[in-house]
Amino acid sequence: MKKMIIKELLGDYKKILHHDITVQGWVRAFRSNRFIALNDGSTMANLQIVVDFENFDKDTISKISVASSLKITGEVVESQGSGQVIEIIAKKIVILGDNFTEERDKTILQPKKHSLEVLREQAHLRFRTNLFSAVFRVRSAVSFAIHEFYNKNHFFYINTPIITGADAEGAGEMFSVTNFDLNNIPRNEEGEIDYTEDFFGKKTNLTVSGQLEAETAAMGLGRVYTFGPTFRAENSNTTRHLAEFWMVEPEVAFNNLENNIDLAEDFLKYVISYVLKNCAEDLEFLNSRFADEQKQKPEKDRAKEGLIEKLENVIKKRFMRVSYTEAIEILMNSKENKKGKFQYPVDRWGIDLQSEHERFLVEKHFESPVVLFDYPKEIKAFYMRLNDDNKTVAAMDVLFPGIGEIIGGSQREERLDVLKAKMQDMNVDEHELWWYMDTRKFGSVPHAGFGLGLERLVLFVTGMTNIRDVIPFPRTPKNAEF
Amino acid sequence: MKKMIIKELLGDYKKILHHDITVQGWVRAFRSNRFIALNDGSTMANLQIVVDFENFDKDTISKISVASSLKITGEVVESQGSGQVIEIIAKKIVILGDNFTEERDKTILQPKKHSLEVLREQAHLRFRTNLFSAVFRVRSAVSFAIHEFYNKNHFFYINTPIITGADAEGAGEMFSVTNFDLNNIPRNEEGEIDYTEDFFGKKTNLTVSGQLEAETAAMGLGRVYTFGPTFRAENSNTTRHLAEFWMVEPEVAFNNLENNIDLAEDFLKYVISYVLKNCAEDLEFLNSRFADEQKQKPEKDRAKEGLIEKLENVIKKRFMRVSYTEAIEILMNSKENKKGKFQYPVDRWGIDLQSEHERFLVEKHFESPVVLFDYPKEIKAFYMRLNDDNKTVAAMDVLFPGIGEIIGGSQREERLDVLKAKMQDMNVDEHELWWYMDTRKFGSVPHAGFGLGLERLVLFVTGMTNIRDVIPFPRTPKNAEF
Repeated sequence: MKKMIIKELLGDYKKILHHDITVQGWVRAFRSNRFIALNDGSTMANLQIVVDFENFDKDTISKISVASSLKITGEVVESQGSGQVIEIIAKKIVILGDNFTEERDKTILQPKKHSLEVLREQAHLRFRTNLFSAVFRVRSAVSFAIHEFYNKNHFFYINTPIITGADAEGAGEMFSVTNFDLNNIPRNEEGEIDYTEDFFGKKTNLTVSGQLEAETAAMGLGRVYTFGPTFRAENSNTTRHLAEFWMVEPEVAFNNLENNIDLAEDFLKYVISYVLKNCAEDLEFLNSRFADEQKQKPEKDRAKEGLIEKLENVIKKRFMRVSYTEAIEILMNSKENKKGKFQYPVDRWGIDLQSEHERFLVEKHFESPVVLFDYPKEIKAFYMRLNDDNKTVAAMDVLFPGIGEIIGGSQREERLDVLKAKMQDMNVDEHELWWYMDTRKFGSVPHAGFGLGLERLVLFVTGMTNIRDVIPFPRTPKNAEF
Repeated sequence: MKKMIIKELLGDYKKILHHDITVQGWVRAFRSNRFIALNDGSTMANLQIVVDFENFDKDTISKISVASSLKITGEVVESQGSGQVIEIIAKKIVILGDNFTEERDKTILQPKKHSLEVLREQAHLRFRTNLFSAVFRVRSAVSFAIHEFYNKNHFFYINTPIITGADAEGAGEMFSVTNFDLNNIPRNEEGEIDYTEDFFGKKTNLTVSGQLEAETAAMGLGRVYTFGPTFRAENSNTTRHLAEFWMVEPEVAFNNLENNIDLAEDFLKYVISYVLKNCAEDLEFLNSRFADEQKQKPEKDRAKEGLIEKLENVIKKRFMRVSYTEAIEILMNSKENKKGKFQYPVDRWGIDLQSEHERFLVEKHFESPVVLFDYPKEIKAFYMRLNDDNKTVAAMDVLFPGIGEIIGGSQREERLDVLKAKMQDMNVDEHELWWYMDTRKFGSVPHAGFGLGLERLVLFVTGMTNIRDVIPFPRTPKNAEF
């Protein structure tokens, strides 16, 4: 008997109408001892199975209830009921797995609503819910769209190291990786920890970014991108931070800052278009959920656009491109600033922008995604290219409504002498980064790149609000279950 | 002026013949003060630039040599010389980056042959060589083909955790991840290390496999795969082992062992076909290199097929499917075994197969990729499904010529009682894996999956022999540079 997944079946049912097929899945509901809503994870939609209970033994019927798993063979027919186009008239039912009803009723699989917090504690079962199966299908589509975009544009995917001996980048606190027996750490004659005895013969950490290594690859392959896990050992218990998250980092030889901004805009629009096109059902569900959530908020806090509407608008508009200097003027002259409504008042050129400032620019002033560029050199990393004004660097941040910074990047400093001076000023060890310095010798070229945090993009696309709800197994302070 | 990358230019030159364009890249050679071979990493091929040195100032000409970087504007014309279809008549040359000749000549960029060992020490410059740019372009194509295959087949990409609190899987030695100051590790009243004080509040490690978490995802989403880094803290200094490598792990609800083998075969053939189709130039280069290498070996050790021929043959043939029991008989009765030519004699059912046995089966006996299945339960992991004979488990290994095991997988034990008994027998802690046990309650279903080591597949496809040469920045004992 032909086995099919529900997505294929619903997409192409005309060919198999009035044929017998086999489907397998989990029971989401069983009404009137007659209608099974079967889900196999391939799509949001359940398949309706019609059971004539007279045709099956009692024992089988008694084992059909929420969370049990079934293999069903039957005829595909047009549905008489509303809500579905086709249904299956069951001819054979095999119970694959029981639902352990009593234990189930202590889990999130019991048939009632659960809070996101409770769902998080049973992350291994979240895949079985409508909400999280939708979120993780969308996350998968976002990931594929990322690879497809770069592949179409002649980028090469490269894997930069996860375990790194470098800790110079300074993007954040790092986790140590060691093979030492912590009860018996070897020490040298001076009594210091003897890292030459550790697995790698030196102190090693988990990477905070693949950028520096990606630059070396771009200096040979031209256009490259990474897409892998990165880590921060920061004790931030917020809805925006994870200790382990996935980052996409393109790096392009011969690109300047403007090319870099164009790339970021094209990239984000491609991915969002892909999801709109390929995840329609999941987005419909998330859109309704988002609308319901908004209704429960006080009117002034409600989003102005629906979820799908928001995604469509991002694609339509050209992102606003605004220099840091212009942004500071807008902020300084804003009513909000003058009335003291910002927690951090904007009083001079040179300050670092806070999330409240970014959100003001995006959500109130421009009502559009905004790309800020040319930041003061003091508040940005050593590798960003110094502009001719000697005050700013060719940095860029893409700010999205509801999310804030979704991309951060820059043109890189390709001039060896300028780079060296910057490193000295900022106390970055040149010797440790000997290989990075090499990329500025032997045919140094202008180049640029950026980093996108995958989870922030998935938050934006799904309308979820806590970053722990868009990664299957979140890693946060005091939490590494599963 | 229209900027183009060399791959686009060579692929579509007819449209721009006799137009002016701009190209940028690195000098691979400069002959007779007249012909520049320019490479921008987008493809193996160099673009020929014709320079009338009378038209340019001496200073510019003097800076053009191996490893310097240029921006050239000129007319696209059909080439008079052999070896290329088109060339560019330079009208404007901008030196982007000097080549620091003296320093360059201490690097692998100096224009002469270098050993793979020397190249490895300058991994950051390997991207600039013909060989490694080809290898890493092919690696990128392999990675994209993997995502494309699973996407086309309705799999969802999921990210399983890199930092894990579980260490029960037993696939290998694990690295510790910690935020402790190793000079000042907190201890509890009993004097034991107080992991509740560590970042995650417990002892954590780097993952050796995402399988167990992927299973929980498959129990909701149906068809899933992971593709991410995995780690082994094993002191193996061989050409086959890395401490950090990338693994692909599909996991499929409702699949049995046969479906699993079919999936593995379809998957490998898809990826290899993709590379043959999309990396023709890189494979040509690697094919010649492979042929040259073979010539230097004694005749008996030479590969029977060329590299491309080998790849084409893998696609054509159906993989041989052989049970462990059959394989043991073949090995026991082989001349090699009887004449004592195996280092590990095959004397009874139940032994673990060594690499020499696998290679005999693949390269001598069957002359084909081989899938071994139904292994003795004692030599396989606790989660593999017990067969009805009570002696074997539904495990499978795919063995490839020259590589040995390229895929290992199994149908998983979905029966809670059998799984529990297995875990008890094998001393796996049920309580630590409470969430894994849950997947066998609440609608447990038959399911199966496997793991593919990306680097082993890239070795096979590129004909390289040392695994450190197919990952940009290899991590091995005493080595975590870059």
